[in-house]
Amino acid sequence: MEETAWNKLGAYLKETQILGSIQSTLYWDQNTTMPKEGSNWRAEQLTYIAKKLHKRNSSQEFGDLINSAEVELSTLKDDKKEIKVQNINLLNKEYTRQKKIDPLLVEKLARAKSKGYQNWQQAKLDNDYEIFQPFLKELINLRKEEANQLAEDLSPWETLAQPYEPDLTKSFLNKTFTALKETIPPLLKNVKKRKKEVWDIDPNAQKVLCSMLLDEFGRKKELLSVAESPHPFSITLGPRDFRITTRIVKGEPFSSFLATAHEWGHSIYEQGLPSQTHQWFAWPLGQATSMAVHESQSLFWENRITKSKSFAKSFFKRFSNQGCPHKSYKELWKEMNIFKAGLNRVEADELSYGLHILIRTELEIEMIEGNLDTRDLSYEWNNRYKNLLGVKPLKDSEGCLQDVHWSEGAFGYFPSYLLGHLISAQISTKLENDIGSIEDLIENRSYEKIIFWLNNNVHKYGRTLNSMELVLKVTNLELSSEAFIKYMKNKIRDLD
Amino acid sequence: MEETAWNKLGAYLKETQILGSIQSTLYWDQNTTMPKEGSNWRAEQLTYIAKKLHKRNSSQEFGDLINSAEVELSTLKDDKKEIKVQNINLLNKEYTRQKKIDPLLVEKLARAKSKGYQNWQQAKLDNDYEIFQPFLKELINLRKEEANQLAEDLSPWETLAQPYEPDLTKSFLNKTFTALKETIPPLLKNVKKRKKEVWDIDPNAQKVLCSMLLDEFGRKKELLSVAESPHPFSITLGPRDFRITTRIVKGEPFSSFLATAHEWGHSIYEQGLPSQTHQWFAWPLGQATSMAVHESQSLFWENRITKSKSFAKSFFKRFSNQGCPHKSYKELWKEMNIFKAGLNRVEADELSYGLHILIRTELEIEMIEGNLDTRDLSYEWNNRYKNLLGVKPLKDSEGCLQDVHWSEGAFGYFPSYLLGHLISAQISTKLENDIGSIEDLIENRSYEKIIFWLNNNVHKYGRTLNSMELVLKVTNLELSSEAFIKYMKNKIRDLD
Repeated sequence: MEETAWNKLGAYLKETQILGSIQSTLYWDQNTTMPKEGSNWRAEQLTYIAKKLHKRNSSQEFGDLINSAEVELSTLKDDKKEIKVQNINLLNKEYTRQKKIDPLLVEKLARAKSKGYQNWQQAKLDNDYEIFQPFLKELINLRKEEANQLAEDLSPWETLAQPYEPDLTKSFLNKTFTALKETIPPLLKNVKKRKKEVWDIDPNAQKVLCSMLLDEFGRKKELLSVAESPHPFSITLGPRDFRITTRIVKGEPFSSFLATAHEWGHSIYEQGLPSQTHQWFAWPLGQATSMAVHESQSLFWENRITKSKSFAKSFFKRFSNQGCPHKSYKELWKEMNIFKAGLNRVEADELSYGLHILIRTELEIEMIEGNLDTRDLSYEWNNRYKNLLGVKPLKDSEGCLQDVHWSEGAFGYFPSYLLGHLISAQISTKLENDIGSIEDLIENRSYEKIIFWLNNNVHKYGRTLNSMELVLKVTNLELSSEAFIKYMKNKIRDLD
Repeated sequence: MEETAWNKLGAYLKETQILGSIQSTLYWDQNTTMPKEGSNWRAEQLTYIAKKLHKRNSSQEFGDLINSAEVELSTLKDDKKEIKVQNINLLNKEYTRQKKIDPLLVEKLARAKSKGYQNWQQAKLDNDYEIFQPFLKELINLRKEEANQLAEDLSPWETLAQPYEPDLTKSFLNKTFTALKETIPPLLKNVKKRKKEVWDIDPNAQKVLCSMLLDEFGRKKELLSVAESPHPFSITLGPRDFRITTRIVKGEPFSSFLATAHEWGHSIYEQGLPSQTHQWFAWPLGQATSMAVHESQSLFWENRITKSKSFAKSFFKRFSNQGCPHKSYKELWKEMNIFKAGLNRVEADELSYGLHILIRTELEIEMIEGNLDTRDLSYEWNNRYKNLLGVKPLKDSEGCLQDVHWSEGAFGYFPSYLLGHLISAQISTKLENDIGSIEDLIENRSYEKIIFWLNNNVHKYGRTLNSMELVLKVTNLELSSEAFIKYMKNKIRDLD
């Protein structure tokens, strides 16, 4: 390869990517296969890699390489100049961010996250928020300090949300989420009540069903491996190495099936990114654009595809063979779509899901920027659940301690989940305009056609467009909650 | 920790061990879970780590640390001085070896191994040795070059065998193996013929039986993970992180079961090594002494335990429940011990096994040191099987492509398997003298007692003794084929 500044920078990034993907492989193994007592040594391995990675990402050498490539670009004529400039800008942005933070703060934060996670686990186990409270306070203070050091032209909470959702603002959220806060509760109230059947599927049969599901969607075994883990996830370990997990939950016969569909959606996005060569795998533009877009893809496969009527029809026999008690596919479909406000975010249906996110988003903005003291979090959480969802946690473990995110100092992450629902709905409308109704596509088993459309309208852009730009480009409309609300109203009518 | 030269060296070794165990984790994942198309990027990761490791193991810094520790040791009084000196000697030996090899060769080898493995897989699948042949040739050339660079006072093949079997010489092999080449064929000829029953066990049921087997032996799930791989193996990924694999072979109802017993034996040796702390995991004396001793432990559990009459008795009902057609445990036992020359090493019985090794050992010595061209390997392989075992492969996938070793550039490894049989037999004689007959121990399910004896007579020595010294220490006799031949003759009589 030619000894240009650009190629030197690429070689540096590739080595960083090799290290990063080794880290991901260790993480994958830890969550799928590692015996419990391997955890101490695994922590040593992960710490070793994390230190190496941080050093590479904030080194003077890296800064110089970016600079040289930038200078070289400005003097060269290159038909890919625009894209190259965009890559350099993203690298500069991240490098500057890394450099702005005091290494002492990085160290303090690493420690606080580790302590936070540890004490959150204990607090959840003991069902005692007071155990976690001082550590949460410390995490908030340190992350406020981080936002302060970053000194961006954004509010502190917005600054912290950027790595998950670039260019996200509170005013955008406010505009987009307000409609949902008004629309969802009355919709939920009017949904026809439906009792959940008590039945289950043998774990081995669930695995077979998950495998059939992936075959139906057209997975390539030589590209995608599947395993089990306590929390389902999707991960990419190389340009041609994709992995997803699922989990079997006793008494929840659809859980592993829907988790598989969800993680498949994440993976098919990653598989569609412009990452076919190591070159792109290493450069920022080859990566996913935001968590919200990622969620939109997983939610699309989980809710729009797998929870659809046509899909229930196509898998009805296979479920019946495994002891599903329903007499018709419509009954099966209805059981996969019970809408009912509950306490738990992860187990929530499509409709009530948004309310869980609204509460978390408001609370964390108030804790980071407003007057909400961590000591009042449990009270505020319970109160808002009562007001918005009409249910009240009896204990903090099913209330403000249920999610892991804050214990790791992750603020600004939650909105991505709800934005994902909105993006999925808005993009789906366009998809249906382009290639026909989703129900028909499923009826005809046109998954290849769906994937082809997603590849060419969503996935291929990588980070060249942020989430809002992507939605505008695809749908010709600004992102809003309209398509989502319309979709939900139709589905509720249909389910009636 | 005190800032002694010894501790500084320990810290250095620990970081090397972290890298080495990351390499092992990547290897584990590659063989158990990685989707096929992940192989190119995995090769990049493995090359990266191999380069780092070689750099660490041959660096001036490392040499200086060993030197300083050696000087410090000579002036200090230390009650563990003898052991520390032995550690330093082993480190010096390996350091010298590493320093001799050109880093460029290391990189070439890493890549050639990865490509070799990849193309061996394809060649085996397509049953086409020609696909693999050029890669094997490349591996042989590179490893010959390595032996050349090492310039030890040994033949090239002996030089390459040292890491597996320290102090092994061709003349020792000649002395030990010659008896077997003469004894086994007539023994095999006179064994009472027994027709193999045609039956099978459902793959899921095989997994359950393997799990029962491990439970019977006393495995700890928090220490040992199990998976499937094309070629069963055992690996240690941390001081408290052990893994084994098995594989299901269609039409071979005992295959996964015996492979599990075999790999358990490897793992229980590793688990019994003085490696409980990171300190020992990092120092050479905490490691296994040789592949032959390793094999002796796996073969012990496979053949002496699992293929014994008492064991067949104890698992008879469990096999019957899975469709085993035999009317008595003695019939089951006899089917597990059919002695008949076949094409496959891994599926071979205890008696004909040695012949598979004799052929491979001769072939690789001729490829490394003699005139055997890789292009003639398939022909030579088939010819020697015909002459020594009386069977001839119809295709290379069941001939010279059956084993993985050469595809990873591992020459000098095969004799360990046969030496393992001899060591297992000789050590078993002593074990029975000390704690009673193996049949009785199994009858009483005294696996803990067996493991305790092995821990205290074999495992605990780590690398303080080489394999020949270990055998002499345990049995008071030089290693020979005598105990093995005696054991085989008795077993054949018993089976009659």
